[in-house]
Amino acid sequence: MSTLEPPPAAGVSGTAPALTLDDVRAAAQRLAGVAHRTPVVTSRTLDARTGATLLLKAENLQRMGAFKFRGAYNAVRSLDDAARAAGVIAPSSGNHAQAVALAARLSDTRAVVVMPTDAPVAKREATVGYGGEVIGYDRGSQDRDLIAAELIAERGLTLVHPYDNLNVMAGAGTTALELIEDGGPLDVLVVCLGGGGLLSGCATVARALLPAVRVVGVEPVASDDWQRSLAAGEPVTVTVGPTIADGQMLPRPGRLTWQVAGPLVDQVVTVTDEQIASAMRWAFERLKLVLEPSGASALAAVLAGQVDVAGRRVGVTLSGGNVDLGTFARVTSSVRAPTTA
Amino acid sequence: MSTLEPPPAAGVSGTAPALTLDDVRAAAQRLAGVAHRTPVVTSRTLDARTGATLLLKAENLQRMGAFKFRGAYNAVRSLDDAARAAGVIAPSSGNHAQAVALAARLSDTRAVVVMPTDAPVAKREATVGYGGEVIGYDRGSQDRDLIAAELIAERGLTLVHPYDNLNVMAGAGTTALELIEDGGPLDVLVVCLGGGGLLSGCATVARALLPAVRVVGVEPVASDDWQRSLAAGEPVTVTVGPTIADGQMLPRPGRLTWQVAGPLVDQVVTVTDEQIASAMRWAFERLKLVLEPSGASALAAVLAGQVDVAGRRVGVTLSGGNVDLGTFARVTSSVRAPTTA
Repeated sequence: MSTLEPPPAAGVSGTAPALTLDDVRAAAQRLAGVAHRTPVVTSRTLDARTGATLLLKAENLQRMGAFKFRGAYNAVRSLDDAARAAGVIAPSSGNHAQAVALAARLSDTRAVVVMPTDAPVAKREATVGYGGEVIGYDRGSQDRDLIAAELIAERGLTLVHPYDNLNVMAGAGTTALELIEDGGPLDVLVVCLGGGGLLSGCATVARALLPAVRVVGVEPVASDDWQRSLAAGEPVTVTVGPTIADGQMLPRPGRLTWQVAGPLVDQVVTVTDEQIASAMRWAFERLKLVLEPSGASALAAVLAGQVDVAGRRVGVTLSGGNVDLGTFARVTSSVRAPTTA
Repeated sequence: MSTLEPPPAAGVSGTAPALTLDDVRAAAQRLAGVAHRTPVVTSRTLDARTGATLLLKAENLQRMGAFKFRGAYNAVRSLDDAARAAGVIAPSSGNHAQAVALAARLSDTRAVVVMPTDAPVAKREATVGYGGEVIGYDRGSQDRDLIAAELIAERGLTLVHPYDNLNVMAGAGTTALELIEDGGPLDVLVVCLGGGGLLSGCATVARALLPAVRVVGVEPVASDDWQRSLAAGEPVTVTVGPTIADGQMLPRPGRLTWQVAGPLVDQVVTVTDEQIASAMRWAFERLKLVLEPSGASALAAVLAGQVDVAGRRVGVTLSGGNVDLGTFARVTSSVRAPTTA
């Protein structure tokens, strides 16, 4: 087992799920008054287009701009006092890095983020802005996991994995808990899917509260590891192609997220970059909301007709909005928003 | 008195205000379940920058993308059955046109919108999309008010003025009512100011519920008619210069809005186009919200330090988000967002 691999989850060998509704409820208590209770946004034009009742959970309005804050904060607050005092470490160049940095600052401890030296300056600055210590590495010549392992050994840091961590999943699951509490019962829940942390938490909540709910994950065509893994009946590794959905470029389901979400998810559908960009444009024009590519993927699947929603109450995660204006303008400039007038 | 001038308001000759909290509460009842109860958005980075507690009322998430829906709907629903059945008319090329069109459709009646033939295609299409009948006129050779007067006489339509109408003001005032109900008491209320409908409604509510509140209006430098009128102690007419704030290009306070808001407003401040564009960029990057120029003006005043907010609880209207992506990218491309990290 590598240093960075998570420990076996409770219940993996038995029939009990590794993650429970109670875990998510406990996370909700930790997050109360700290995370934003983000609004559930509705659009009558979207409902008219789809023939469904769409309930959009606007996690782009979450602290640091994405649902990731929920899981990172829950994980940091779940550490015992000694571990929390020693600090945490996250190998990430994306939203998880910022989430862990902010969670650590709010918990009076420190976060170390291991990030490639060629990561966008904005991501690095944002992480530093939230109080994180950034350790750079060269993608070509250095092994990120080895660097992290050395830091863990030297400084007594605790790894907060971006998704393969039960506390991270439980925190992410509060997204669906709030969506159902505020938006009412759902027939379908459509979730943005990368490593599977959000899907694991949300599927656990939805299935526990609404046994008949249909849970759909959405990943980019260029990174269809979950779809292929479900078809194979076991985790498979794919070659990730280029995609604008930088938060979902993962070659293989997480070990724990596969165990938790695999049995709960009914379907995984894929979306193209063009469908994602079109959904970003539609959200800008009609919802007045800024979504990053990965954060728009679930909405893109609905707008593109990839999910059967007609006549149903459908929850959709808008999972993040961290995209700079230049990138936003570039990726959306060549597409039209779907017509919903 | 021209055909389009509103009738004298109740209470104008006496000491009683022409608009009361009860009028706004009645509007809130009409709007319940029809208008969105938009979220009150907070930002810890904004609070840290300003030393204040900022409560941002996100009316860009309102139906048809701006607070204007509230007033238009309240006005249409306040008509008696015969007048409502005959239909309404609005001379407007902006958000009020769309608001009246949507309000009429929801009230099973028709709206006629008198719009210059050179109005942006998107505005025309949006109005038609909401079911409005657009009557075009040539700015150079035709008189809009005369065209409207003829249509009123011919078809028995009722004028719904964009701001100089007590029911429009009352509807707009529900913005502040919700802000105070959901966000708690305020020391300062900062309101986007064009014709003064939003200011009239919001100032009436705020002063009634919070007698010590400081009410601040914000208009573009290029259209500083309220600021100059307050200095003069009477309404004055200004020459409106070019500005990106297309919803606030009005040369003179409304007759009724001056009567209602004039005695209630403590201060009117002005913002430049650059300050507005900078606030739009900041809202995109940090709030993940799309604001149109006029909708960002109150926020711009706070970010630019034009309003004394330190140590106070401050409500701010984000009054609309109807801006196309190309325009948004163009006006924000040359400015930086204020630093709030």
